[in-house]
Amino acid sequence: MTVTASRVQDIDDLDVTKSVRSRDVSQAVNRLTALVADDMERVNATIIENMQSDVALIPQLAGYLIASGGKRLRPLLTLASARLCGLHEGDEAVHLAASVEFIHTATLLHDDVVDDSSLRRGAASANAVWGNKASVLVGDFLYSRAFQLMVADKNLATLKTLANASAVIASGEVAQLTTANDLNTNHRDYLDVIEAKTAALFAAACQVGGEAARAPWPQVAAIRDYGYNLGMAFQLIDDALDYSADQEKLGKTVGDDFAEGKVTLPVLLAFEAGDDEEQAFWRRTIETLDQHEGDLERAKALIDKHGALRGTVEAAERYGAKATQALNQLSPSTGAAQEIREALENVIAFCIGRGH
Amino acid sequence: MTVTASRVQDIDDLDVTKSVRSRDVSQAVNRLTALVADDMERVNATIIENMQSDVALIPQLAGYLIASGGKRLRPLLTLASARLCGLHEGDEAVHLAASVEFIHTATLLHDDVVDDSSLRRGAASANAVWGNKASVLVGDFLYSRAFQLMVADKNLATLKTLANASAVIASGEVAQLTTANDLNTNHRDYLDVIEAKTAALFAAACQVGGEAARAPWPQVAAIRDYGYNLGMAFQLIDDALDYSADQEKLGKTVGDDFAEGKVTLPVLLAFEAGDDEEQAFWRRTIETLDQHEGDLERAKALIDKHGALRGTVEAAERYGAKATQALNQLSPSTGAAQEIREALENVIAFCIGRGH
Repeated sequence: MTVTASRVQDIDDLDVTKSVRSRDVSQAVNRLTALVADDMERVNATIIENMQSDVALIPQLAGYLIASGGKRLRPLLTLASARLCGLHEGDEAVHLAASVEFIHTATLLHDDVVDDSSLRRGAASANAVWGNKASVLVGDFLYSRAFQLMVADKNLATLKTLANASAVIASGEVAQLTTANDLNTNHRDYLDVIEAKTAALFAAACQVGGEAARAPWPQVAAIRDYGYNLGMAFQLIDDALDYSADQEKLGKTVGDDFAEGKVTLPVLLAFEAGDDEEQAFWRRTIETLDQHEGDLERAKALIDKHGALRGTVEAAERYGAKATQALNQLSPSTGAAQEIREALENVIAFCIGRGH
Repeated sequence: MTVTASRVQDIDDLDVTKSVRSRDVSQAVNRLTALVADDMERVNATIIENMQSDVALIPQLAGYLIASGGKRLRPLLTLASARLCGLHEGDEAVHLAASVEFIHTATLLHDDVVDDSSLRRGAASANAVWGNKASVLVGDFLYSRAFQLMVADKNLATLKTLANASAVIASGEVAQLTTANDLNTNHRDYLDVIEAKTAALFAAACQVGGEAARAPWPQVAAIRDYGYNLGMAFQLIDDALDYSADQEKLGKTVGDDFAEGKVTLPVLLAFEAGDDEEQAFWRRTIETLDQHEGDLERAKALIDKHGALRGTVEAAERYGAKATQALNQLSPSTGAAQEIREALENVIAFCIGRGH
């Protein structure tokens, strides 16, 4: 059995969201998008308007990344959270969603510089096209723009939430620099890294939606918890996909994490379960980055042998279950909010079932 | 006459602030520092407290740059502006001054990555010690911390001012990337670049001081104008020093701008006044970066021949005069404020007389 086949098996086994059959999984985000389509159009217009500049390179570079798009999951979460918490009008949620996307785009630009990545979402990364310098500076610009957009709405709660999230993201990225090639990283340290890298912004994206709605704290806390756990599940699956995905379909370079010696959960689980010879293999390839032809295949085989992808997906499922629990604490009062809640529940399955 | 001698002559001629003899110039910042010494101590404590992190690399790298220090001119301007506008208590000006220094430090970290600089203030730059990746990410962290600090004081005016300044800075840096090697840059474009690079943060540093004091707009506008014009003068002199300074004394690599093909005012003035052969020299060295031994000396000689340093210093003097005018619009009501105003006036002469 190949690693990829094993991975498909893993996903087919998923049982997190029983109401969603796996073939429906990819429709979950589309459904959410449809529910907030009017606001999402305004988010896109806000994004385009606010990345304009007399300096032509800024809209060129920012537009390249933003247009290549992905599913705009984070701004969707902001819009959906605001609606779920009872906000149905005004520009604030739209501005916040655009700010969240700007912060996300800024971190992607800086990440690609830090990781020397050449591919992003299946196309050449911005730094590969325009160089590292432009990526650093346009990232800074988008980050500033995010705060400018937020300031206009005069809501200190949301400003605080996104400033805090940004600090957590940056400090987590620095932590990842220092733990990148250390197989003695424990699971807690790994989880801290993915929390900072992904879950912090997912959590903040949801929280600011609740804050824009001026919802009471227990409601804001619940939607924040949902975002946090969804983000953890999302990143765990991302780390699994780096050893299993269909490259063309996923639009990322499979094996990047391995090439960079990133210590992710699939590697940690395979390393911990490995015998002396296998551990020596991991130390050579991950810690000293002494890699040769066939090493990625060997890594995949060892990950398969020890069920490390299965273990990673199971960890994602546990976070997915917590995300569902958090949603259950919210009691929508209207049919429209109920639809949003169901769509958010289905997004959990989408995140875990990505790449299929 | 050597270029350096000519430069000294330029400075000796300075007449901007008649009350300050040039040998007293370097004391101007010290005097301002003494006037706000109690607050400045709290700023330093705030800076140290807020650059702490579980991630050891963050305080290491940030502390390296912040400790190497310079004169902390920007936070000084914030504290002095707040006092001048009547604010004598509370933490807000202290937080803002620390935020301004964090934003400045973040831009320095990113600039050094963008410029591939190896020296900063006479020591190895942070990117030379810890690498570009760490510099990008710690810069992001400090930038986020600046906003976290500001949010705590719940003043939307200051948040807006520094978010706007940050956007201007980033967009100006991108503009500089695209005009770096173009001798057809006109003076207005050059001034836009230095406005974004330096004057925008000087202006904002002063403005937030006035806003923290809840001063009426004409007063805030005047102190902002002072900061803006001081920043323009400061950067013009910085660009002159790159062709004339005593490297050890200045703590920067003389000739960096030339090596990078930066189109600064000394170069523009020499280029515009040059004959065909001289213009060909500038095109070869600045536009195509085809540089050989002796080219920097030739560049300095041409700049000297056409009085281009004198022209640059004169431009700085004009901004210095406007900074003085802006200060004159403020009418301090107390002796303490009068002392601050005089010290701010002397800082203009310091900025123009730097490097001596």
